[in-house]
Amino acid sequence: MSTHPVLVAGGWRASDATGTFGSENPATGEALPGEFPISSWNDCDAALHAATDAARALRTAPPASIGAFLRRFADRIEARAGELVETAHRETALARAPRLADVELPRTTAQLRQGADAAIEGSWSLPTIDTKLGIRSVLAPIGPVWVFGPNNFPFAFNSVAGGDFVAAIAAGNPVIAKANSSHPDTTRLLAEEAFAALRETDLPASTVQLLYRTSHADGARAVSDPRTGATGYTGSRNAGLTLKEAADAAGKPIYLELSSVNPLLILPGALAERGDTLAGELVGSCLMGTGQFCTSPSLVILFAGDATERFLGAVRERLDATAPTPLLSRAVAKSLAKSVAKLRGAGAEVVTGGAAVEGPGYRHANTLLRVDGAHFLREPRALQTEAFGNVSLAVVVRDEAEAAEVLAQLEGNLTGSIYSDTGGSDDALYARLEPLLRPMVGRLLNDKMPTGVAVSPAMNHGGPYPSTGHPGFTAVGIPASLRRFAALQAYDNVREGRLPPILRNENPGARAWRSIDGTWTRANVSAAR
Amino acid sequence: MSTHPVLVAGGWRASDATGTFGSENPATGEALPGEFPISSWNDCDAALHAATDAARALRTAPPASIGAFLRRFADRIEARAGELVETAHRETALARAPRLADVELPRTTAQLRQGADAAIEGSWSLPTIDTKLGIRSVLAPIGPVWVFGPNNFPFAFNSVAGGDFVAAIAAGNPVIAKANSSHPDTTRLLAEEAFAALRETDLPASTVQLLYRTSHADGARAVSDPRTGATGYTGSRNAGLTLKEAADAAGKPIYLELSSVNPLLILPGALAERGDTLAGELVGSCLMGTGQFCTSPSLVILFAGDATERFLGAVRERLDATAPTPLLSRAVAKSLAKSVAKLRGAGAEVVTGGAAVEGPGYRHANTLLRVDGAHFLREPRALQTEAFGNVSLAVVVRDEAEAAEVLAQLEGNLTGSIYSDTGGSDDALYARLEPLLRPMVGRLLNDKMPTGVAVSPAMNHGGPYPSTGHPGFTAVGIPASLRRFAALQAYDNVREGRLPPILRNENPGARAWRSIDGTWTRANVSAAR
Repeated sequence: MSTHPVLVAGGWRASDATGTFGSENPATGEALPGEFPISSWNDCDAALHAATDAARALRTAPPASIGAFLRRFADRIEARAGELVETAHRETALARAPRLADVELPRTTAQLRQGADAAIEGSWSLPTIDTKLGIRSVLAPIGPVWVFGPNNFPFAFNSVAGGDFVAAIAAGNPVIAKANSSHPDTTRLLAEEAFAALRETDLPASTVQLLYRTSHADGARAVSDPRTGATGYTGSRNAGLTLKEAADAAGKPIYLELSSVNPLLILPGALAERGDTLAGELVGSCLMGTGQFCTSPSLVILFAGDATERFLGAVRERLDATAPTPLLSRAVAKSLAKSVAKLRGAGAEVVTGGAAVEGPGYRHANTLLRVDGAHFLREPRALQTEAFGNVSLAVVVRDEAEAAEVLAQLEGNLTGSIYSDTGGSDDALYARLEPLLRPMVGRLLNDKMPTGVAVSPAMNHGGPYPSTGHPGFTAVGIPASLRRFAALQAYDNVREGRLPPILRNENPGARAWRSIDGTWTRANVSAAR
Repeated sequence: MSTHPVLVAGGWRASDATGTFGSENPATGEALPGEFPISSWNDCDAALHAATDAARALRTAPPASIGAFLRRFADRIEARAGELVETAHRETALARAPRLADVELPRTTAQLRQGADAAIEGSWSLPTIDTKLGIRSVLAPIGPVWVFGPNNFPFAFNSVAGGDFVAAIAAGNPVIAKANSSHPDTTRLLAEEAFAALRETDLPASTVQLLYRTSHADGARAVSDPRTGATGYTGSRNAGLTLKEAADAAGKPIYLELSSVNPLLILPGALAERGDTLAGELVGSCLMGTGQFCTSPSLVILFAGDATERFLGAVRERLDATAPTPLLSRAVAKSLAKSVAKLRGAGAEVVTGGAAVEGPGYRHANTLLRVDGAHFLREPRALQTEAFGNVSLAVVVRDEAEAAEVLAQLEGNLTGSIYSDTGGSDDALYARLEPLLRPMVGRLLNDKMPTGVAVSPAMNHGGPYPSTGHPGFTAVGIPASLRRFAALQAYDNVREGRLPPILRNENPGARAWRSIDGTWTRANVSAAR
C-alpha cells in the first residue's frame, strides 16, 4: 500500500513525509484502507512558496474566473456524490441519508455557488469612494490562507470545500488546506475534484493545495510564516489556542472557532405552555450528529419547580428511548468521557447515561446531567466545560436572581437561545434577562434550537472568546464570512486607470454595491464629479 | 502642590496612586507645573467596574444622546481653544499656529462631529436583514474600551478626544482613557470638557473615565481583563506588543498602530520631470511635526544616477536651510538617537545631520541618511528601523531588478507612495513595481506625500503588521474606524419588538443604510414580506 500524494505547487506529488497515518470507521473501530502522509516542513514550505505566486496572480484574476472555478467544483462534487457520501460515511459514521447526501452535501455545493456569486458581484468588499478627497478603499485579498477543517462536517466545513475554503477563495486568495485527520480520504476526493475544476479555469494551479497532516510545531510555524496571509481554524480549543499564540505573535490574522456550550434558557411560561414539545425539540437538537455540532445546546437553564421536573423527566425518557449513534472518532469518545468526568467532578449529577457504551466502535450513552444554580455558581468555569458529543447539562436555578447570576458567569458562546411563552407572561422576565445573555453570544435565538446554522447574509456563526478568537467576524454566511480573509486597501490620489476595476468610475457590470460619498449605489461615479 | 485627581466612576476623585509624574516643556527641557498620579490596579479596577455598568446602559441609549454628547464636547473644546492650545504647546512644543490652533484642533472637533453624525445615522454597523430566513444582524457595541493615546497628536489622537475615543463612543461604548505621559495637562483639560459635556446629556456618568498612567503590568492586566471589550493603542512598537500579547492571550481585540517607515518610490521619469519640486515636497513632509507623524516618509527609494544625486543634493540643501524644531520629549530624542545609531550601524551613511543639537530642550539635526540597494538587501530589517523624528533614509537602487528586491523585503507599512511622470514614461515600470508595494501598505498614494491623513470614509490609516496588529481595520476615517469597537450580533427568529431599533421593520428616521435581502436601502422592510 503506497502513501497518498499531497497536492502541492500545481500537482499531486509524493510528500516529503515524516510518517503516515490512516483513518478508522468509528462505527466499528476498524482501520480503513489508505495511508496518508504526515508532511514535513519541506512540504509546508513548498506550499507556501507556490501559494505566494498564486496569490500575486489572483490579485488581478477576473472575478468571473473565481466564480467559474467555484461553480465547476460544485458541479463536480455533485457528479461524484455517491462516492463522496460513501467515503464520508465510512470515515465519520454520519448517516448517508438524510445527513450526508440530502443535507450536508447540498449545503456544501450551495455554499460554493453562493461564494461564486459573491466573488462575481463584489459587494462583500465594501468598496468605498470619496470623490471629493480622491480617496477610494476596498477589502482586498489578504494572501495565502491556511484552512484547518474540523472533524464534524466532512463536507460543509472541509478544508478543501467548506465554509472557510469558499470564503478564502471567493475573497481572491489561494488556500492551503490541512485535512482533518479523521476523514483524510473524504478530503482527498474533494481535493481531486477541486484541482480538476481548477484546471478547467485560467486560475493559477496552486490556488488549491492540500496537506493531510503536519506536526503541531510545523502548524504553528505555518500560520506565523511571513508568507501567510491569514488562517481559518475550526476544531478543539487547545490545538486552536496553540496556533493562535503563534499567529498572534507574528501579527497574522487567525479566525478560530473553538468551543461553545450554547446556553439555552427556558422561561417558566414557555415550559408551562409547551413543555413536552420543547423536550422533543431539545432532544432532537442535542442528538443531532450525536451532539457533535458546534451549536449543540449543552447548557440548559431552567427554573426550579414541578414543571421543570416533568420536563427533565420527558427529556430523560426521550434520551433513553433513542439508540446512541456513533461518535466521530476514538479521540472524540475519549475527550467526551473526560469532559463528563470533569462535569461530574464539579458537582453535576447524572440524570441518565453518563458512560461510554460497550461494544464495537465509539459510542457514548445519550446523557443528561443536572446541577442546581448554587452549585453552578461555585464552579462556573468547570461546569462550562464543553462536552463535545451527546451530553447536556441542565442548570436548575431557584429564582430570577440566581438565573441572573448564572448568566453573568457565562463565557462567550456562538449561540444563546431563550424560549418564552406566546401569551406574553414571560415578556417582563425576558426583558430583564436578555441583556445579560446578549453580549455573551454571537447569535441570539427565540423559541428555536441553535443547531441549524443557515447560510444567510445575516448569519453570525461567531461570538466572543473563547467561542472564537474575535467577536467581529462570522465563519458562516456569505458575503460576511469573506471579510475575514481580506486587508483594507486605500488608494489616495491614484490615477484612475491604475485602480482595481471595482474602484474605477465605471462600476464593472453595475454589479457591486459601492458606498459613494456616503450613499450605497450600483451606479457609476458620475462624470460630473 | 497637590496631585491631580483621576476621573473614575462618574466623578473626579483622588487616585489610589503608587507615585506621581509630571511633564516637561520639550523646547526647554524645563519641568512644567502639575503633579499627576500613577494609578494602582485599584483605580483600574474601579474604572472597569463602573465602565461595565455604563456599557450595559449604553447598549440601549438613544443614538441621539451619543450624538449630542459628541457635539457638545466639540463645542466645549472650541470654547476653551485658547487654553488648550497654550497647554498643548507647552507640553509638546508643537507650534500654536497653524499646527495646533488652525489644523489639529479643528480636525479634532470635526472628528467629534462626524462621529456624532455616524452614531445617529447608524450605517456604520452594517445592519443586515434576511427576511426569508428571519435572521438579522448588526455590529453592536463591544463593551468598555481602553484607549492609549500617542505623544504626537495631543488633540486629534488624544485618548479622551481623538480618533479612537470618537470611534469607541460613537459605536456605543464607554471609554477608559490612559493619558499619554508627555501631555497629561492637555489631557486633563480635554477630560474636564468631556465630562462636563457628558453631564449635559442623559448618558451614564462613567461613559468617559481617565487615568493618567499605570504600571506596564497593570496596563497588560487592564487590556486582558474579562470586563474589557477592546483596546485602541497608538504608540511605540515595544509597549504596544506587550499589551498585544496580554490582550491576545485573553481573546480581547486590540487595535494597534505601531510603527511605519512609509516607503516612497520615486520613478526616474518623475525625477527628471520635477525633481526640484519633489525635493521641496519631500522635505516639507519629512519635517512636518519634526518628522513625528506616523506617516512620515522615512524610506525613500530612488534609482541611481545623476538626477538622484542632484535630488539628494537639493534635499540636503533644504534640510540644512531649515532650523530643526523641537522633538516631543526627552524619550523621543533618546529613541531617535538610538535609531540613527542602529541605521548607521547597519550601513547607512550620513548625508547631512545625524546628531542631536546641543542647547536647551530636545532637538535633533534635520537628517538625511543614504544607503545603496545592495547594502539595504544585506540588512533589510535593521535598515527599516523606524527613526521617529526628523530623519529619513534614501535607498539608492541600481536598477529595476534591485528595486524589486528591495520592495520584496519591505515590512508592513501604513502608507506607500509612488511618484511617476505625467507623460507616461514611468507607466510600464509602475505597473511592474506597484504589485510588490501594494500588499505591504494600507494606503497607496500617487504623486502625493503621505503625511496628510484625511478623515474620509475611504481612508485607511492601517496596514499589515507591524504597522498595525490587524490589516482589516483603519484607525482614521468615519464610519469605518467605528467597526473596530464592535461585535457582530445576529438575531435568529427573534420577535420583532425585541430587536434593537435599527433591525426592526421600520428603519428609525429612515437614516441607516441597511442591506435587506442583498439590497442596500434606507427603506423600511416592506409590510408585504
